[in-house]
Amino acid sequence: MSKSICFIDGLEGILKYREIDINKLVGLPYDAVSYLLIQGELPNEEELADFSARLRGEREIEKGVIDIIRMCNLNIDSMEALRTIVSYMSQFDPDLEDESLEGNTKKAIRLISGIPTIVAAYHRISNGKDPISPDPALSHGANFLYMLRGSQPTELEAEVMEKDFILSAEHELNASTFSSRITASTCSDLYSAIVSGLCTLKGPLHGGARLKVMDMLEEVSSPENAEEFVLKKIENKEKIMGFGHRVYKTYDPRGILFKELAKQLAETNGDMIWYETAEELEKTVLRELVEKKGKPIYPNVDFYSGVIYKYLEIPPHLATSIFAIGRVSGWIAHCFDQYSKKRIIRPRAFMLDEL
Amino acid sequence: MSKSICFIDGLEGILKYREIDINKLVGLPYDAVSYLLIQGELPNEEELADFSARLRGEREIEKGVIDIIRMCNLNIDSMEALRTIVSYMSQFDPDLEDESLEGNTKKAIRLISGIPTIVAAYHRISNGKDPISPDPALSHGANFLYMLRGSQPTELEAEVMEKDFILSAEHELNASTFSSRITASTCSDLYSAIVSGLCTLKGPLHGGARLKVMDMLEEVSSPENAEEFVLKKIENKEKIMGFGHRVYKTYDPRGILFKELAKQLAETNGDMIWYETAEELEKTVLRELVEKKGKPIYPNVDFYSGVIYKYLEIPPHLATSIFAIGRVSGWIAHCFDQYSKKRIIRPRAFMLDEL
Repeated sequence: MSKSICFIDGLEGILKYREIDINKLVGLPYDAVSYLLIQGELPNEEELADFSARLRGEREIEKGVIDIIRMCNLNIDSMEALRTIVSYMSQFDPDLEDESLEGNTKKAIRLISGIPTIVAAYHRISNGKDPISPDPALSHGANFLYMLRGSQPTELEAEVMEKDFILSAEHELNASTFSSRITASTCSDLYSAIVSGLCTLKGPLHGGARLKVMDMLEEVSSPENAEEFVLKKIENKEKIMGFGHRVYKTYDPRGILFKELAKQLAETNGDMIWYETAEELEKTVLRELVEKKGKPIYPNVDFYSGVIYKYLEIPPHLATSIFAIGRVSGWIAHCFDQYSKKRIIRPRAFMLDEL
Repeated sequence: MSKSICFIDGLEGILKYREIDINKLVGLPYDAVSYLLIQGELPNEEELADFSARLRGEREIEKGVIDIIRMCNLNIDSMEALRTIVSYMSQFDPDLEDESLEGNTKKAIRLISGIPTIVAAYHRISNGKDPISPDPALSHGANFLYMLRGSQPTELEAEVMEKDFILSAEHELNASTFSSRITASTCSDLYSAIVSGLCTLKGPLHGGARLKVMDMLEEVSSPENAEEFVLKKIENKEKIMGFGHRVYKTYDPRGILFKELAKQLAETNGDMIWYETAEELEKTVLRELVEKKGKPIYPNVDFYSGVIYKYLEIPPHLATSIFAIGRVSGWIAHCFDQYSKKRIIRPRAFMLDEL
């Protein structure tokens, strides 16, 4: 039996992809983690070199895809654009009809490599700039920042982006992954399954939360305002973005890693404001909700990743699309697993309340 | 408490939308059934007139949408095109950001009315013809056939098309409806939820089955070949398209209605070949699988609807898109219900085998 794609212990705060702890995975290249998720085992040196070369060879997008990006440029939401562009992209895939494992792997590689190029090109075009061609010499993370900005990121920035993609890559049956799986369960094609994931990730209760964390940081704006902000939210019984999770009832292990990365970025940039604002928000939430009320409301994956995006100068409206860049490998792993079952997911209405 | 959107008794072969039996609903206009699904109650005369007028007023699609249809014209699958076009269409919706019930109702009306126009325009453009403008004087069904063909359908054809949309409108938590609901559960927008449904309906184990029934009828081609075709399929342990259902263990009540409509079309056209071929296929399956082996393998919704599409001269590759025209009202009803819950659907992996 193949290793399960994901393991979460929400009480102990443990997350594994294919039986390997996230704390170990975060030290690998994204390409290796992507391979692990899809193939079920870590690649050896040769397999990684081969897979990486295939990914890097598929970073360029078709001219027709650039055309549609230009047509999605009416100040629309970046996830709305990404949904349309990825859907449109399928018609250029020469292996679209090939549903063999190799055919689907070719599509998978085009999606994993093409989506970052689309997100960067959309961002540049919507700001009146020309898209930047991908650089095959750079890692997945570094290349994305390069295409976004038009200049090389620092070594730390590249590392943080790479780790962000790894930490965002997979999380069991979250809503977007579940909808990708349902689409795949009807033997619909891989592009449809990934578009379905994008449609679902877009929601503010899911991938959209990261952007709301960034908005919140902007609103609070300095550590001195954090305590009052949280107290007022609690008084008004409003949700505090970036806290709490349906599965984790303790600190999200990704949150611990993201917090450390945020601190590194803050210190290297010599600008502690976002980190310290976040830390004060966290302290107040932990004191008021965890300690005083015993509620398991810990920072979730979106909280410190939102801080990181502030330091990387990523515009908030791109946050969900960047989440999608990482997550696409997880969606694909689940789709491949679902394709192998050849069984449609079809619950009955009475099951709905359990889900 | 509101009336449940759908009730299915798979053992007795009963189907109700909002507590009204499908045998009664099939005599109403599609607009009334669409209103029923979305609003929860049948409209009175005035409400129906108002809802119908709103639907008819939104049949035209934007020029920008026609542009993208022309760009989706590289001989791609019609569901692939529809997925992209509906996704692209959202940027023209002036109420996209309005998540109130009225805002969502406006979007719903644009989707219900716009999708038939898109399907017809796509079909005509991909055949080198110009799209036909909708005719607000015609019913939902008649107008669709008119836009597809460029000429008025007969009264019977219009009636059959209307009933096809009604019978296809809703079926509880089938895979596409379930994926729409999951997308809506993250508070993603209505266009995303409908695109998610389209992605899932596309699969050959779901909406794609109707097209496979049409291909099968073409392959069998006459009643004399039907018995041998079925016996060979059974011998080779191959699936016979259009038979069997996860929920129904008896005759699908929609199948009975579709069969009657198919017979009417056959008799009126004076061409019994597709009807008789289908009937012979059915007889053999019932004799071999139901009577001899006790398996509940009855004709499902796709079987006689496939026959109807043959008589309506609908090209097989459009079959799934036409299914979507009917089903969009059901998807929307489920999305509205899901929006009212404000709770994300997030199963755990161990639940997957139950679904």
